[in-house]
Amino acid sequence: MDHISFPPFSRVVISGGTHGNELSGVYLVQEMQRHNVAQVGSLSISSVLNNPPAIHACRRYMDKDLNRCFTDALLSAALTDASPSELRRAHELNALLGPKGSERAVDLLCDLHNTTSNMGLCFIIDSIDLISLHIAKYVQSKMPSAPTRVIHLDVSKSEAYSVDSVAKHGFSIEVGPQPHGVLRADIYNMMKEAVDHTLEWINRFNAGASFEGGDMEVFGHEKSVDYPRDPETGQLVAAVHPELQDNDFKLLQHGDPIFMSFTGDTVNYEGEELYPFFINECAYYEKKIAFHLAKRPTVTLPPISMKKDEN
Amino acid sequence: MDHISFPPFSRVVISGGTHGNELSGVYLVQEMQRHNVAQVGSLSISSVLNNPPAIHACRRYMDKDLNRCFTDALLSAALTDASPSELRRAHELNALLGPKGSERAVDLLCDLHNTTSNMGLCFIIDSIDLISLHIAKYVQSKMPSAPTRVIHLDVSKSEAYSVDSVAKHGFSIEVGPQPHGVLRADIYNMMKEAVDHTLEWINRFNAGASFEGGDMEVFGHEKSVDYPRDPETGQLVAAVHPELQDNDFKLLQHGDPIFMSFTGDTVNYEGEELYPFFINECAYYEKKIAFHLAKRPTVTLPPISMKKDEN
Repeated sequence: MDHISFPPFSRVVISGGTHGNELSGVYLVQEMQRHNVAQVGSLSISSVLNNPPAIHACRRYMDKDLNRCFTDALLSAALTDASPSELRRAHELNALLGPKGSERAVDLLCDLHNTTSNMGLCFIIDSIDLISLHIAKYVQSKMPSAPTRVIHLDVSKSEAYSVDSVAKHGFSIEVGPQPHGVLRADIYNMMKEAVDHTLEWINRFNAGASFEGGDMEVFGHEKSVDYPRDPETGQLVAAVHPELQDNDFKLLQHGDPIFMSFTGDTVNYEGEELYPFFINECAYYEKKIAFHLAKRPTVTLPPISMKKDEN
Repeated sequence: MDHISFPPFSRVVISGGTHGNELSGVYLVQEMQRHNVAQVGSLSISSVLNNPPAIHACRRYMDKDLNRCFTDALLSAALTDASPSELRRAHELNALLGPKGSERAVDLLCDLHNTTSNMGLCFIIDSIDLISLHIAKYVQSKMPSAPTRVIHLDVSKSEAYSVDSVAKHGFSIEVGPQPHGVLRADIYNMMKEAVDHTLEWINRFNAGASFEGGDMEVFGHEKSVDYPRDPETGQLVAAVHPELQDNDFKLLQHGDPIFMSFTGDTVNYEGEELYPFFINECAYYEKKIAFHLAKRPTVTLPPISMKKDEN
């Protein structure tokens, strides 16, 4: 496969606290700021806490989920006094790290998240971005003991809603299981290691290394499944079944139990074979999502290296 | 040891949602209300959701931790327009279920809680109350596969701060690990089974059964340990060490690792041998508690039965 080259990185940002109660990223960014990680050769590495009021309150968000505010439509909407604080902050972050889709945007934004689901270490990408996939592949190879997976949301740049979509290349690193509002050393260490390897990859890339291509499994989001609810009140009438709980990325087959009702009845899965993920994530109750389902196609990556004659 | 007798139970209350994001109790009480568990012979069993606004918001509390509002001092303080909503609700609940310390108070209040700590099933009691201990012993015998423990806070009736202190006999059932804001079927089922056995014990007691005495281990709260913090900002500079995390009730010995700093240093334990519990509980960050420490004395229970000639 043809070798592909990209310009070197000049501005990279690691951000955390997009959701104020996802503490690994909050503490990791605070540590970066304490130790002033900044300039490596011609590369500037900076770190940002994305939602300070929510971090202070230890809540996901104050008015509106910040990580759903970065579509072109929302970023071009006029702000008013009645705008949610997160929409205001999204416009600020877009000015600081973007503008989205422009030449001025940072080269790479890595946004740090936690989940209550048993998902290990995941890279979440909007589109098949070769830089992000090569970084994920590198981290996978460096952390063989951590289950490292890539989730592809398949949304266009314009409709991409997450903060990392404002950068030229962006992804979120999602690590779990960790209760929101809690910091676990094992989860923190896993995230720290993934960020260190990400920065190492960028430094090696900028130093002229080339990276081999190869096949890579990517989980492609297909659809979402809600909890069984009382049709009148909307209240849950069942919980995720113990045989599904904690089994993110284990192929779900026709007839497998997925919910257990409070009266003891089992609900079985009736669809095609797919991979569940974000099973019983705390923040998704309000989004009416008990779990997502994915296909797992293989993507063939071309080898890449730095474009030597930039300028 | 002498046999001790108590009057039969006439009013028993199961409550949940004292902390609005501890979902097992919220859903268990909602299920009880849906199925109208009410009267068994001369025994009335009712259920209460203690903090509806916090349940609706899926937060521990709105203004103030409700489960710290039931001291005599707070229950006798005058309410004003500026009183926190939880203090107002504490006065309501005291009128409904108490008044605390009076003959009118319900016979037994069992309040349902979850923790992010790996504590299994715990009965938490303010004082060495024979009824509560006999129920805990019965549940222990009926649920041999669940780790069932008793925690004794050792506070006087007047200073007892939890909602269950308004009843003649009261305890909380604490089940974990479960992230706050998440409902896990395994944790829900463990709580449900404990409540069912509690009600079964009460029905057997009221039917005239006598219950053997015996020795019982009780974890007695000794002290609490905070996270290492930056003295200026109060921010955490370390997380609970991976070797301590999830090891609630495992004897902590001099030299054992307890914290891991974000720069990779280990902090070792330097005190006397004690049992840690509530390790890395989400809600205790703001209370400046990384874990509690307990002794584990043995309490000898006398046999008990119903007082036959009540009236």
